[in-house]
Amino acid sequence: MTFDEGLLSPLTVGHDQEVTDAAALDALVSAEVALVRALARLGIAPPETGDEVSSALGWRAGAHVDVDVDVAALAESAASGGNAVIPLVSMIKAQVPEAYRRWVHRGVTSQDILDTALMLVARRATIEIDGTLCEVGMALADFASRHRDEVAAARTLTQHAVPTTVGARAAGWLRSVLAARRRLSDVSEHLPVQLGGAGGTLASFVEIAGTEHARALPAAYAAELGLATPDAPWHTDRRPVTELGDALVQVLDALGKMASDVATLARTEIGELSEGAGGGSSAMPQKQNPVAAVLIRSAALRAPQLGATLHLASTLASDERPDGAWHAEWPTLRELLRLALGASASASGMIEGLRVDHNAVKRNLAATRGLIISERLSLVLGDRIGPERLATLVDAVRAGGDLAELVRALPESAGEDIDALVDPVGYTGLAGVFVDAARRRALDHEEPE
Amino acid sequence: MTFDEGLLSPLTVGHDQEVTDAAALDALVSAEVALVRALARLGIAPPETGDEVSSALGWRAGAHVDVDVDVAALAESAASGGNAVIPLVSMIKAQVPEAYRRWVHRGVTSQDILDTALMLVARRATIEIDGTLCEVGMALADFASRHRDEVAAARTLTQHAVPTTVGARAAGWLRSVLAARRRLSDVSEHLPVQLGGAGGTLASFVEIAGTEHARALPAAYAAELGLATPDAPWHTDRRPVTELGDALVQVLDALGKMASDVATLARTEIGELSEGAGGGSSAMPQKQNPVAAVLIRSAALRAPQLGATLHLASTLASDERPDGAWHAEWPTLRELLRLALGASASASGMIEGLRVDHNAVKRNLAATRGLIISERLSLVLGDRIGPERLATLVDAVRAGGDLAELVRALPESAGEDIDALVDPVGYTGLAGVFVDAARRRALDHEEPE
Amino acid sequence: MTFDEGLLSPLTVGHDQEVTDAAALDALVSAEVALVRALARLGIAPPETGDEVSSALGWRAGAHVDVDVDVAALAESAASGGNAVIPLVSMIKAQVPEAYRRWVHRGVTSQDILDTALMLVARRATIEIDGTLCEVGMALADFASRHRDEVAAARTLTQHAVPTTVGARAAGWLRSVLAARRRLSDVSEHLPVQLGGAGGTLASFVEIAGTEHARALPAAYAAELGLATPDAPWHTDRRPVTELGDALVQVLDALGKMASDVATLARTEIGELSEGAGGGSSAMPQKQNPVAAVLIRSAALRAPQLGATLHLASTLASDERPDGAWHAEWPTLRELLRLALGASASASGMIEGLRVDHNAVKRNLAATRGLIISERLSLVLGDRIGPERLATLVDAVRAGGDLAELVRALPESAGEDIDALVDPVGYTGLAGVFVDAARRRALDHEEPE
Amino acid sequence: MTFDEGLLSPLTVGHDQEVTDAAALDALVSAEVALVRALARLGIAPPETGDEVSSALGWRAGAHVDVDVDVAALAESAASGGNAVIPLVSMIKAQVPEAYRRWVHRGVTSQDILDTALMLVARRATIEIDGTLCEVGMALADFASRHRDEVAAARTLTQHAVPTTVGARAAGWLRSVLAARRRLSDVSEHLPVQLGGAGGTLASFVEIAGTEHARALPAAYAAELGLATPDAPWHTDRRPVTELGDALVQVLDALGKMASDVATLARTEIGELSEGAGGGSSAMPQKQNPVAAVLIRSAALRAPQLGATLHLASTLASDERPDGAWHAEWPTLRELLRLALGASASASGMIEGLRVDHNAVKRNLAATRGLIISERLSLVLGDRIGPERLATLVDAVRAGGDLAELVRALPESAGEDIDALVDPVGYTGLAGVFVDAARRRALDHEEPE
Repeated sequence: MTFDEGLLSPLTVGHDQEVTDAAALDALVSAEVALVRALARLGIAPPETGDEVSSALGWRAGAHVDVDVDVAALAESAASGGNAVIPLVSMIKAQVPEAYRRWVHRGVTSQDILDTALMLVARRATIEIDGTLCEVGMALADFASRHRDEVAAARTLTQHAVPTTVGARAAGWLRSVLAARRRLSDVSEHLPVQLGGAGGTLASFVEIAGTEHARALPAAYAAELGLATPDAPWHTDRRPVTELGDALVQVLDALGKMASDVATLARTEIGELSEGAGGGSSAMPQKQNPVAAVLIRSAALRAPQLGATLHLASTLASDERPDGAWHAEWPTLRELLRLALGASASASGMIEGLRVDHNAVKRNLAATRGLIISERLSLVLGDRIGPERLATLVDAVRAGGDLAELVRALPESAGEDIDALVDPVGYTGLAGVFVDAARRRALDHEEPE
Repeated sequence: MTFDEGLLSPLTVGHDQEVTDAAALDALVSAEVALVRALARLGIAPPETGDEVSSALGWRAGAHVDVDVDVAALAESAASGGNAVIPLVSMIKAQVPEAYRRWVHRGVTSQDILDTALMLVARRATIEIDGTLCEVGMALADFASRHRDEVAAARTLTQHAVPTTVGARAAGWLRSVLAARRRLSDVSEHLPVQLGGAGGTLASFVEIAGTEHARALPAAYAAELGLATPDAPWHTDRRPVTELGDALVQVLDALGKMASDVATLARTEIGELSEGAGGGSSAMPQKQNPVAAVLIRSAALRAPQLGATLHLASTLASDERPDGAWHAEWPTLRELLRLALGASASASGMIEGLRVDHNAVKRNLAATRGLIISERLSLVLGDRIGPERLATLVDAVRAGGDLAELVRALPESAGEDIDALVDPVGYTGLAGVFVDAARRRALDHEEPE
Repeated sequence: MTFDEGLLSPLTVGHDQEVTDAAALDALVSAEVALVRALARLGIAPPETGDEVSSALGWRAGAHVDVDVDVAALAESAASGGNAVIPLVSMIKAQVPEAYRRWVHRGVTSQDILDTALMLVARRATIEIDGTLCEVGMALADFASRHRDEVAAARTLTQHAVPTTVGARAAGWLRSVLAARRRLSDVSEHLPVQLGGAGGTLASFVEIAGTEHARALPAAYAAELGLATPDAPWHTDRRPVTELGDALVQVLDALGKMASDVATLARTEIGELSEGAGGGSSAMPQKQNPVAAVLIRSAALRAPQLGATLHLASTLASDERPDGAWHAEWPTLRELLRLALGASASASGMIEGLRVDHNAVKRNLAATRGLIISERLSLVLGDRIGPERLATLVDAVRAGGDLAELVRALPESAGEDIDALVDPVGYTGLAGVFVDAARRRALDHEEPE
Repeated sequence: MTFDEGLLSPLTVGHDQEVTDAAALDALVSAEVALVRALARLGIAPPETGDEVSSALGWRAGAHVDVDVDVAALAESAASGGNAVIPLVSMIKAQVPEAYRRWVHRGVTSQDILDTALMLVARRATIEIDGTLCEVGMALADFASRHRDEVAAARTLTQHAVPTTVGARAAGWLRSVLAARRRLSDVSEHLPVQLGGAGGTLASFVEIAGTEHARALPAAYAAELGLATPDAPWHTDRRPVTELGDALVQVLDALGKMASDVATLARTEIGELSEGAGGGSSAMPQKQNPVAAVLIRSAALRAPQLGATLHLASTLASDERPDGAWHAEWPTLRELLRLALGASASASGMIEGLRVDHNAVKRNLAATRGLIISERLSLVLGDRIGPERLATLVDAVRAGGDLAELVRALPESAGEDIDALVDPVGYTGLAGVFVDAARRRALDHEEPE
């Protein structure tokens, strides 16, 4: 039975190795092994226990776990207890030599393992996303620099407004991507292990090993997994999940806004941008669809609601462990990670292949017959000629008049360099400054954090 | 690569055969075959074409398609065009004899096939859900009848309010389930095929076969698949999807409310209900968790946001085909179907095994020392003794006084049958009437529609 | 203190008299009065009680309540009990002659009154929305008919695909509006009163008036208010709210999709549509913004999440009355009503003033140098010349070649009427059929239901 | 007409002076005045301009604006241009002496003013929220300390699990509140002004005052308002809004989780907590509803979907200014601020008045007849007696046996201090440690940041 192989998820297929069920299983087993290793390292379990259990379960530092567990069978047996950890513990205990078996899953609750495993999955996925966003940032910095001074129409409420530059628009995308990357990176570095025992008090570990060992255990556990040590168990304080969710949604916001702009600017009538590898159609041989933009956008449209589910689960994390809210988080968080992996990978390719049609940019800039600089006219001449005469001038241009000539004909414009005044090139403000600043910031970020 | 085998979806594993990727592939191929069959049936294609293509692609009426397509490979090749239909057409054309190949996917666009396939998946899944909800309804009707007159505390804003009955509470669950089932059934019966061609005008079919044939084709297509004929193509009028989504969310609302009540009433301190097969714990041998309720609740908490995504995709279904909004629908709709399949199956088992602890019901009913009938006292005696003396009476009971004795001591209660007055059994209003009515309605629904 | 006068809600100001706090207060008082009238009508209260209380509280059939209650003061006193009914009852009782005072709010709970009042508000608002949607439908039917045969580019994934007509596009909007109106109308006609008493059993009314009277009371209550009689109390079965919410979201989906299309087609480069009264800019004298479309769209983007909140409140309607979920419904439902009122009013004006720029439509249709009919070429010539030669032809046109000449030069096109073949006018399929059908359906709906 | 006076918002009425329409108007005028002052300060406008305009519009540092603008009339006139700034500029210009009038709204676009005003509203509101959360934190630290060692049942999946303490539970609430406060505070301190001009390039200011002045202007503008200087205009990079939204949702998550726990623990059967001022009922004299908890919870259930709308608006912030997405932000962000103001104020009162019923805590702790320490038995005796005998022991207790006696009867428990072993007081792990740590952190935060 093929539960889901990605048939309905073209954006993410091939980019989500870090979050598949195989990866989740790897993380679950790693979480169990790491606990045993931490117990051994602290001298709570016999010193050889960590290596014996690691070896029995196919765990080696820096490698994927090589354990004999059938994911589909495990999934099916998860229903009766409500999560996969309960049957997994039986399965893996059977593979551990009897002498060490008692140390497997000792003192923990299934939420400790599942939360830790999801944080491990998230850590691996966010490192991958960060690297890809670094590529997106570099590609955008390069794109923005190359088009730093290419004057184009700025559009507000769908209408041409004033001039901007192709580079300034890309600098805006870049700022958003850098900020999203920074936030995700902050969150990623602080993804904590979960370790609280049945009621979040670590009473089991105090019982087994005494108070001092119990206090030291979370950090030892975290060290084994390369995760952070939490202040306290977070069974019902779901900040690690919601903060990660918020950061992932922000990544998808940034990519989605960029993709929306690409799709708009690729419209047949606008034609300023095109994807290097546009998608074909099953029916129309002439089409070149902005497929990457469309798929990225589809992910960005789903992300906010997935993030909302995580927040709801946080509010509803009742008692000392939630009665359903926690279970709602798992597929939701995984889907957000998957979308961010797919969208960032797709964005990287999209930006690297993005082509600007200079003629279209110029043609569009001229579409209002020069009126795109009417704000400037208003600033320069407005006080002299008043709003009514300015409106008359605008109407005359709309009716076919030549803007430069009409301005030149005004007594009040005497002494002005009319050609310069009506040239959009001279009215791009700080566009270049913003490009340079964004590019500099991207270069400062160059190394994946 | 295990994209997803359900490891994080314990509620749905084993209940979702109708919506797996294998089922989606089956539906996609069925949609392609049905179009060819419809073209042949109308005499547009040569008469034998339908059977030849059916046979080549392993399609037989009433059976699953037996075609040689690797789902994972298909999923990977879907990215470049943005959906799986484009590569699928190449794959299946290669399996059709050359003489008939030109009729495969003739005149349609990929959205025609994908929308139709999702409606087919939805049709099959909603029939399954309807059958399971019928079982839930029967089980609830039986449960409500058996507990028709078992008086229990009604709780409002978490506090004991007045008496109700165990049966009346279940009758409320039943009304919601029946209403949700009715709505889902209405929607299910009208799930339409999609057939519009590239721009939603069926111009290709007019070209191929003339206006009359083009007008007749959608109904012929629908007949092949057991789906409904739409008024017009709905490429950007996404009502079939949002109405289905709304109905599925309503199903999950009904099941989620019931599950929330079960979880609450199963609390250790309340203990009025327990699941026949409570889930164990990995750490605490004494626990009997209401696992079914918890998992159903987790699905219900996710459903509204999934439904919201479908509505957003509907609003954003731009132009003659959407630029990303459509793509956001697929996994979202499938997940809603999957959750409804899992939650209804789980609810059926939960209700069939639900046990009432009569002692707990009685103990709780008495928890306010009789004050649960204070509204009745207010109605019967309020006018005679006024609100202040009533409040004094209530305080006296709270302080340990005996309600019946205190009432009896009031001169104004002379002539009243005090024991009857303070007995919660006599203050359940129309509880029994509601049970009987809901049960009758469930029986009227007995046959899956 | 101005809590909210609509400063941040330009879409709705002036269109929402039915849902303001004044209207809500009117409905709350009406709900209280109607209950007294129903009690009197059934002979439970003395016969004159209904009129005495009506008169004391300024209630007359068909008019707004004229009662002396300060809304702001009432709002402030609502916090301590959690809703406004509790203090309202005190306020209005003080205005009722003592002889009849005991019949005010007798036997009910505050949720009975608040739910009923919100349904009354909803009933009035949905009748208004329905009337406005009728106008939108008529305007769209007229618009679609006038542009029935105006050939235009259909766009899919942002790219020109095949021809369609201006009218066919509008017919699509119309179908969505009619369907949304039908659904809203269905829901509106069945909006029920709430009447369950403290625990949803009507025990108080059985106590006061006996079982038969208690059974008859909901219908008598509903009759006073022009609302429907529910099957049973729905304190925790929130279908009336979620079904209304879903219907309102669907209205906003339909209007939002239309507004998105108008905004897109009004883009400077596309220019096919403009609003009759475009909005000005504070900075740029040349701008004509599609303000109505933009504001309608803003409402449609908010609606799905508001609808999701209602569904969540439905799932979380715990016990016999919810512990917070119910309270979350009130402002959410009111906002959905408000948005639907504002968006439908704005849409009515927008469509009535909508202008088509025929030149822009033609210019855009020709933008691909004729390749917009390439699907037709593929159907007509594809089998004869094969996909490679077709691709070569497409490339030649893109490079500047004349489509008709290039087709004519093909030996395989001998005998075809090339001018007709490449004319988009001949490739609009059933566009006209869809316009006629949608128009007919709109006319059938003409009378507000 | 009363648009909204808070009748349906009992949680927020009286706590939202910082976000009313009057406050928004104040902020809009302040934003206009501040721009003029900044222009004057930089020497772009004549030096006296700032004070003249300030005086004309009733602006004084640190006070509320005293300007003659009718909010309701302004709201109504906002529809035609899509926002309130356009008509406001006309209204206030008329109040400014003609000599200085040209400096009002010079060079800016309406989004500059509206975004800045909303950030100013947000700044004021978040400072208020922060102060209230500080009180909540202090009250929680005190509560947790007072109940540091009061042993209580920890509940997981609704069932008693192991012991915890009343203080440890409160420490968990406190950690969440402190973290939410820290995040909100971070965001609050960086709320930026908006200043980009029509297309986000500041071209107007370069035109008016030259590049260097244009570069300096945002910081000068920010200084006038006590807001932060952005890297660049953020017309379509909506991070300031989404990050604020996320932080507010997190505040409501933290308060909502706490309120959910209070509501649960106040249930009649549990009775461990009660609000000092429980709400009455309109029908049932005995009721003491946890009204604050219920209202806080209602806000928390709405917040995630409001946050999702902000993220959607961010993704859909198209072009150089959004076509509807921006307009969807205003009421959504304001509502989130309002809910956070109301919920924090309500939480402060709730925690200060929160009462613990020690007898109920003890009674509940004993509800499983001692089995709440069965995990400990499993750890201590599990290896010696094996899981089957442990299960037998648990069953014997469930059947009425005495836990201590049954354990004592086991040969394997010889030498154990059985009374200590089965005493829940000895099995609270690090509960006290967590209380002390959280309290210390709260004290470190004492001063509002």
